[in-house]
Amino acid sequence: MRMYDLIMKKRNGGAHTEEEIRFIVEGFTKGEIPDYQMSAWLMAVYYNGMTKEETTQLTISMADSGDRLDLSAIEGIKVDKHSTGGVGDKTTFIVAPILASLGVPIAKMSGRGLGHTGGTIDKLESIDGFNVSIPEDEFINNVNSIKLSLVGQTGNLAPADKKIYALRDVTATVDSLPLIASSIMSKKLAAGADVIVLDVKCGSGAFMKNPDDAKALAKTMVDIGNMAGRKTYAIITDMNEPLGCKVGNALEVVEAVQVLGIKNVQSVLDIKQGLLEDDNFGYGIKRLLEVSLYLASYMLIGGGGADDFEEAKRKCIEAIESGLALKKLAEFVEAQGGNKEYIYDVDKLPKAKYIVPVSFGKEGYIASCNTSEVGMVSLILGGGRATKESEIDLAVGIDIRKHIGDKVSSDEVFAYIHSNNESVIEEARKRLLGAYTLSDKKQAAEAVIKDVIK
Amino acid sequence: MRMYDLIMKKRNGGAHTEEEIRFIVEGFTKGEIPDYQMSAWLMAVYYNGMTKEETTQLTISMADSGDRLDLSAIEGIKVDKHSTGGVGDKTTFIVAPILASLGVPIAKMSGRGLGHTGGTIDKLESIDGFNVSIPEDEFINNVNSIKLSLVGQTGNLAPADKKIYALRDVTATVDSLPLIASSIMSKKLAAGADVIVLDVKCGSGAFMKNPDDAKALAKTMVDIGNMAGRKTYAIITDMNEPLGCKVGNALEVVEAVQVLGIKNVQSVLDIKQGLLEDDNFGYGIKRLLEVSLYLASYMLIGGGGADDFEEAKRKCIEAIESGLALKKLAEFVEAQGGNKEYIYDVDKLPKAKYIVPVSFGKEGYIASCNTSEVGMVSLILGGGRATKESEIDLAVGIDIRKHIGDKVSSDEVFAYIHSNNESVIEEARKRLLGAYTLSDKKQAAEAVIKDVIK
Repeated sequence: MRMYDLIMKKRNGGAHTEEEIRFIVEGFTKGEIPDYQMSAWLMAVYYNGMTKEETTQLTISMADSGDRLDLSAIEGIKVDKHSTGGVGDKTTFIVAPILASLGVPIAKMSGRGLGHTGGTIDKLESIDGFNVSIPEDEFINNVNSIKLSLVGQTGNLAPADKKIYALRDVTATVDSLPLIASSIMSKKLAAGADVIVLDVKCGSGAFMKNPDDAKALAKTMVDIGNMAGRKTYAIITDMNEPLGCKVGNALEVVEAVQVLGIKNVQSVLDIKQGLLEDDNFGYGIKRLLEVSLYLASYMLIGGGGADDFEEAKRKCIEAIESGLALKKLAEFVEAQGGNKEYIYDVDKLPKAKYIVPVSFGKEGYIASCNTSEVGMVSLILGGGRATKESEIDLAVGIDIRKHIGDKVSSDEVFAYIHSNNESVIEEARKRLLGAYTLSDKKQAAEAVIKDVIK
Repeated sequence: MRMYDLIMKKRNGGAHTEEEIRFIVEGFTKGEIPDYQMSAWLMAVYYNGMTKEETTQLTISMADSGDRLDLSAIEGIKVDKHSTGGVGDKTTFIVAPILASLGVPIAKMSGRGLGHTGGTIDKLESIDGFNVSIPEDEFINNVNSIKLSLVGQTGNLAPADKKIYALRDVTATVDSLPLIASSIMSKKLAAGADVIVLDVKCGSGAFMKNPDDAKALAKTMVDIGNMAGRKTYAIITDMNEPLGCKVGNALEVVEAVQVLGIKNVQSVLDIKQGLLEDDNFGYGIKRLLEVSLYLASYMLIGGGGADDFEEAKRKCIEAIESGLALKKLAEFVEAQGGNKEYIYDVDKLPKAKYIVPVSFGKEGYIASCNTSEVGMVSLILGGGRATKESEIDLAVGIDIRKHIGDKVSSDEVFAYIHSNNESVIEEARKRLLGAYTLSDKKQAAEAVIKDVIK
């Protein structure tokens, strides 16, 4: 087999065999296929796409290129969750304890953040003593005993994906559906779970800006997962404004705890836009709760804990209202060396020196949000990493109290900026306000759940 | 300017500015743009093409990447001719002396052959003493005194093209119209002539297999030439069988001399297929003569020696019938150290040890020819180079006496194989016969002149 012929085949619109895909992935990973041939092939894939079978084989070959996490010592159906990335997404801290409290084992491998906000690990490290670098046997034991454990990315997971992604990044071949889908799914396959629930974000703060693209990505990933023998669901959720109110590391832990502390879930789900404007438990929390319940419900179905969505949702709501999910979060924190008091008293979490209210200085209805720009404000405040080496400030961030469709009056507090650095506050304030548009007319907010792909 | 953005622009169907094209060509030639970005860009060009302006700028930038031949010391309008490559193409030896005898200066830089037959230089070296490595001043002086000189490729002509071609060759990006056209034309621009006449071959022995592709290539090259300030013509000619009868180095010199020795040109042009079957001056010679007259006529028009095709053709015919063109060939050979007696007595040229008649062993009309395969037979006999280092056997080749549409009887001689190596004759015979198909019905031959693009 020669790479030249395979480039020609894809260039001319042909579909590769399993052997051909394996040859390409293995050859490139070993350095036998040079970058210049791989990038020509990637560009041909950009134009001609890949069949379901090709995309699945690409994913499997990339997953096979390195270590695979061995979860066989864990009892029960292992369920994993993955988000395609958005601003203010703290659903892992909500859904993982819910599932664990319902007996579904969650063995999660997470990364650190790069870009506008920290990753799951960064957020957890705002809890004093919390350790993500636990040995594999302790990780497995924790899952078996308390049904929930989380480690930082270990081992050499899908190195082929890493190498291919680096090349795509410099050759304008990132935004290709089969390449995006296989990149995400290769790591999920290597991470070993039996069931995968995907949160595909859609909107101004997401990689996929419009519902059609998000749906196509979701369908492709669900196909790959199912064809590779993992039961896979995808929930398409709105990212046309941050999820919830809070953006930042410790702030997002606070908000997750707030959700797990809700006593009457239905009353929060019933919140209509524009109500409870000055209340922390406003429309932002309702949106976060709704996404969390969808994800948790499908994870529960996949894990065998419920037969249908209604049953699953009811069980998840009970896990919150009973306080068992919150208790599970505390148990999880304690099992990994963290101080569980931080969960019951979030005032212990790192706090910023300056908490600055921000107002629009004019009246109107919030019409739109450039969500990525809100993420950039968090980065400016020190809450994210500009490069891999950047230090993260866990205390800083933004707490947004008004959402699309809400009315704001001139001096009313729209958001609070949490900063430890006085000199960046003015820039943050300007850019935060610049990320939003106001309108004379009330604008309906986007439904937060856009679609479910099974 | 960043190469990443330029890949993205071309990928999305944009057109590059002059500055962008120059940045890409210069950056890649200097090694500042890595191969993997260049190959992704080339694949994007493969899919999205280039405008006339982009293609012209690419050509100019590649021509500017190295030395340009300085022909300013030559008096008159310098005319160059280029063929896109075929089997049995010996027109240079016919048209260059015709033009020189009519006073049009021909300063030609030629290459050695790689692949199925030798190049112009290899063919000339079958004449004892002929030297293509003459100094530049001697080259210029010869053109000024006798209007014709030829040197082997010197200097660093269009190194960008060389480097880009090498990358295209391994990334399946060779067959892109703007890339093919700019590659050919960059070397022509660097070679310095004022007027360029292109012989675009079309058919089973050519790069372009069908007339539409050949016409598109011809139009693109004519546009480039004209936009770059060189008067350019393209003649599209048939390559569905070898041009003329003879394929091989010394054999092609023999045939060129035969054409220049024709006493009554019109009588040869009048030959109809199937006539004079056993005569060396059959339909093959007529086709070769016709192509040569077209090329020479447009070169003469471009060089200012005639106002229209009829006048030009008449002058070219006179140059042949008067014997002045043949005399010019002898003069040219002598000026470069060759023995001019070889021109007047072609029996002096190297001859093969074995001259083997080949018959089909069945009756029928010649219906088609896999012309590339005929070229491969010449390679097997030792007449071409498999690699750059191969030694060429100047004496060997094939002399084909029957052409598409001709009738062959069972034992009639169809062709002669000229070989110095007994052991390859049988393979050559089998493959030569295998390259042709016979039919019960007479097949009309393709017109040898398919189109003229001005």
